[in-house]
Amino acid sequence: MDSLFNLDQACTFCQITTGEAEASVVYQDDLVTAFMDLFPVTPGHTLVIPNYHASMITEIDPNTVGHMFAVGVKIDRALRDSDFRCEAVSLYLADGAAAGQVVLHSHLHIVPRFHGDLCGLHLHAGPAEMATRKKLEEHAEAIRRSLKSEI
Amino acid sequence: MDSLFNLDQACTFCQITTGEAEASVVYQDDLVTAFMDLFPVTPGHTLVIPNYHASMITEIDPNTVGHMFAVGVKIDRALRDSDFRCEAVSLYLADGAAAGQVVLHSHLHIVPRFHGDLCGLHLHAGPAEMATRKKLEEHAEAIRRSLKSEI
Repeated sequence: MDSLFNLDQACTFCQITTGEAEASVVYQDDLVTAFMDLFPVTPGHTLVIPNYHASMITEIDPNTVGHMFAVGVKIDRALRDSDFRCEAVSLYLADGAAAGQVVLHSHLHIVPRFHGDLCGLHLHAGPAEMATRKKLEEHAEAIRRSLKSEI
Repeated sequence: MDSLFNLDQACTFCQITTGEAEASVVYQDDLVTAFMDLFPVTPGHTLVIPNYHASMITEIDPNTVGHMFAVGVKIDRALRDSDFRCEAVSLYLADGAAAGQVVLHSHLHIVPRFHGDLCGLHLHAGPAEMATRKKLEEHAEAIRRSLKSEI
């Protein structure tokens, strides 16, 4: 799983990391590759991916995960420092189809945002309802229990 | 900026990191605190924040950024391994008001997703149009230039 050479020959994102597939690359190092999204939500929309194949972020080693996001934040800063229209930035990772993931090589979206843009990343679609403390404590306990085997 | 003691007395999220404000905490260490969102989009909606005050993710040191997201991914895994309805997970960070940020202490959302949920995190609101390679190359060049001072 941690191997840099675990590539999927049929995966376009794997092919981008090796240079076999065309992409407009903004950054690459041993762990990650960043390149322009082919269907930009707003101009400057960039993706950061690990250099090995994993469909889910939960399959990627913590060091590479951390680096993916640290590079994503550097791109956030670079977008703000450039001429793109960029009043804010959305960092989004859809981990699974029900979250909107389409390409099955885990990827972090870095999207320049401005008021009135066509980006659909808005947390609340329905009415935001405050949860009871009792319910939140139950949920926290369930996650703590499950986390014990993770951390 | 890197100080663990750079807290904003008036910030509720800072108060949560110190235990002064009530929260249902799922995880805490020297760098980050994770707790249940008071207005959950779906049951299990968790936030991960740095233990010092910074309104923007770009103001947070790379080590803490990496750790925030690595912890976020562990919570992603924990949610999947628990009884929450969780077909997928959205990891979302709104960096600025135009991206939907409300609380001015940078925070990562971990949202359990399922088909038909009321979460509004859908990347494309408008029609997805493929960009020309020429345009993508221009944008990549602009970001590379700006990144040089970052990486």
